[in-house]
Amino acid sequence: MSETRTLATYIVESRPGDVPADVQHEARRALVNYVGCALGGAREPAVDIAIRALGPYAGPPTAAILGRPERMDPLHASLMNGISSHVHDFDDTTPKNYGHLTSPVASALCAWASERPTSGQDFVHAFVLGFEASSRVANAVYPSHYDVGWHMTGTAGVFGAAAAIGRLLGLNVQQMVWALGLAATQAAGLREMFGSMGKPFHPGRSAQSGYVAALLAREGFTAGVHGIEGPRGFAAVQAAASDLSRITTRLGEDFDLRANTYKPYPCGIVNHPTIEACIHLHAAHGFSPADIAAVELRVAPLVLDLCNKQNITTGLEGRFSVYHGAAVGLVHGRARLQEYTDATVNDPATRRVRELVRAVGDPGVTEDQSHVTVRLSDGTTREWFVEQSLGNVHRPLSDRQLDAKFRDQATLALPAAQVEQLLERCWVVDTLDTLAPLLDAAVPPPA
Amino acid sequence: MSETRTLATYIVESRPGDVPADVQHEARRALVNYVGCALGGAREPAVDIAIRALGPYAGPPTAAILGRPERMDPLHASLMNGISSHVHDFDDTTPKNYGHLTSPVASALCAWASERPTSGQDFVHAFVLGFEASSRVANAVYPSHYDVGWHMTGTAGVFGAAAAIGRLLGLNVQQMVWALGLAATQAAGLREMFGSMGKPFHPGRSAQSGYVAALLAREGFTAGVHGIEGPRGFAAVQAAASDLSRITTRLGEDFDLRANTYKPYPCGIVNHPTIEACIHLHAAHGFSPADIAAVELRVAPLVLDLCNKQNITTGLEGRFSVYHGAAVGLVHGRARLQEYTDATVNDPATRRVRELVRAVGDPGVTEDQSHVTVRLSDGTTREWFVEQSLGNVHRPLSDRQLDAKFRDQATLALPAAQVEQLLERCWVVDTLDTLAPLLDAAVPPPA
Repeated sequence: MSETRTLATYIVESRPGDVPADVQHEARRALVNYVGCALGGAREPAVDIAIRALGPYAGPPTAAILGRPERMDPLHASLMNGISSHVHDFDDTTPKNYGHLTSPVASALCAWASERPTSGQDFVHAFVLGFEASSRVANAVYPSHYDVGWHMTGTAGVFGAAAAIGRLLGLNVQQMVWALGLAATQAAGLREMFGSMGKPFHPGRSAQSGYVAALLAREGFTAGVHGIEGPRGFAAVQAAASDLSRITTRLGEDFDLRANTYKPYPCGIVNHPTIEACIHLHAAHGFSPADIAAVELRVAPLVLDLCNKQNITTGLEGRFSVYHGAAVGLVHGRARLQEYTDATVNDPATRRVRELVRAVGDPGVTEDQSHVTVRLSDGTTREWFVEQSLGNVHRPLSDRQLDAKFRDQATLALPAAQVEQLLERCWVVDTLDTLAPLLDAAVPPPA
Repeated sequence: MSETRTLATYIVESRPGDVPADVQHEARRALVNYVGCALGGAREPAVDIAIRALGPYAGPPTAAILGRPERMDPLHASLMNGISSHVHDFDDTTPKNYGHLTSPVASALCAWASERPTSGQDFVHAFVLGFEASSRVANAVYPSHYDVGWHMTGTAGVFGAAAAIGRLLGLNVQQMVWALGLAATQAAGLREMFGSMGKPFHPGRSAQSGYVAALLAREGFTAGVHGIEGPRGFAAVQAAASDLSRITTRLGEDFDLRANTYKPYPCGIVNHPTIEACIHLHAAHGFSPADIAAVELRVAPLVLDLCNKQNITTGLEGRFSVYHGAAVGLVHGRARLQEYTDATVNDPATRRVRELVRAVGDPGVTEDQSHVTVRLSDGTTREWFVEQSLGNVHRPLSDRQLDAKFRDQATLALPAAQVEQLLERCWVVDTLDTLAPLLDAAVPPPA
């Protein structure tokens, strides 16, 4: 049986009870993280602009948009959810294929569930299937597909959105094969867009395109039946090398959600161990910013390739500055979205410490490590070494750390009481009779 | 200046008067052919299904759909126009890059112009610019992009739709650069979909995606500014080899519309010289089908690789049967959409002649040639040799032949009187104060 058909059959025939308990919990974690990120990004200009540009063309406003008062049709709501949840590059990462795969799948699912009564069990099950479909397609073409310049989140994400919505639509195997084919033929997204709004557009558009694929297939719109593995299908056309067995091997037994990771800080991941070390020093020693006389970082050489900007003026530049990361850890004791605004980058105390930082590339330090030494004005020094960065697959964020990340972001879009209510509901999403109370809590009250 | 920016600047700064008269006339011909094809395809199941599946999600119904009574928002109307105009594979072809590039551009433009007052001059100018943008991007990546399995009509088409709509939106150069970037990052469409509804989906989706790109760019949604030529842009990612100079060389002087071609028959192009020879024999000799005792074709060997199906039962199979092509020419004296229905394929007289045909591959015969010999029941023979196929770039369809093709298709969707009115308006499209009378005539009267 072809890979497309094998995958389609699995998606159609899987039962919610087939999902192992640990995977079910990882799905909850992914959704907590996703909803938080969508709320954290919901008021960004990219979302404002997209709603303004496309709102006049949207259909009946039956679907909520996370963190926004507006409603749109579910296809446009999928797009907006995808943009908001990826706009800060703060959503999850599957390190084995560099995809950020919750966004395209969950963005479509939230739009679906805000329009149609959907049980938490079905919602989470569809999410697990969609995530797995995306990640397995991504695995099959990684690394050549990624290396040449495709943004996996867009290209692989569309398969997951089609799978998840197709599952909830009750597609049969033939229809699911078509849905995956119509996903394949819309798989797009170039890394050339990085640094622009085009990047968060990718998970949004793939959520929307996957949703369209499933709707069309449901009504009998046909597609080539070898969309993934055919001689002119996704893998052959979009990857110099591929291993299609990675789509089908141990399907239903291995789940890539187990290898999913969540960022603790909204910036380039190579800065994370430095930030963590600086937050530790701040908390452990309680010095004031004015006491800091010098800071030395010993970091992996790659950090200086990617994040060597010291003289910066914008929040966006701050995300790619290991110096700013060190400064916010030492001065503020944390690194939330609020520490990556233009205001914080230009705050005098933060700037002063940032300018005191010297960074040395050391081939003996891994990308998960950082050694930070702070010299205080009394001549004493404090140092800390992070051996393995928080948030990587071997040292995942705890559920409580995900709570904190959620709260930091959700408060940007929602009143405090609503934040707690929403967070509670996210953790029990799979037990809800319907998603409505969760999604109702995820939009701000009327002005 | 980068290729993306050079192209954007040209699209923004070109004036209608800059289009040479012969190119202006070729634009009229392309639009006559396009509107006819959209009407010929408007009642096909692919269009019915797409409207049924996506209609509930469409926005305010401000835009007409060619050949259909329904109205939808212009983004969905673009999609439907793209599907209908390509569903019979009867639209135009640019042989230098194998793109069918009018469909994605004109499908978006017709949706636009049915919503907003648009002069014929601006409409045709935007079409010329959009067609040229698509064709030049296609040229830059041809042949490697096409050979690996991309459907040029989808991948290059999106640039033209973005360019055309962006031009009418009055984008400035920066915005046009973003629109082309947002087009690049949605460029998709796999040849694996050939033989399914996924194929005509491509020009539709690229029309819609290009329209979205232009709307977003207009409101300030940013994109990478090297969408075409960047190291992770369209050309580098989607083609093993490219020649970017083909985008910019003699821009505004050479126009690919001059190299555009129109099919006389709705079937595989390698069958065309055989059909033409058979139609000639039918007209010249007036024999009745019952008089035919045997038919021999001497054709290029490629014909037998592609169209060697003799024992067929469906109209779709008929399109890839040189035997059926010969039979309809000899029996009916023509080869319109009506000759490629299931009914005609199963018509006893047509089937009898189809089964009498023998085809011989001859390396001395080019793909533009066919030698047909008919032996009649009285023992005499009639023969005809087509040296260069009608519809190729050296022997284009005349305007009057385009009229006939238009009428054959338009009568499938519109009352006869309306067909003539519409055809007249299409030939003077560039002189119309507004497109409204043309588009009004392109939809059927209320039931």
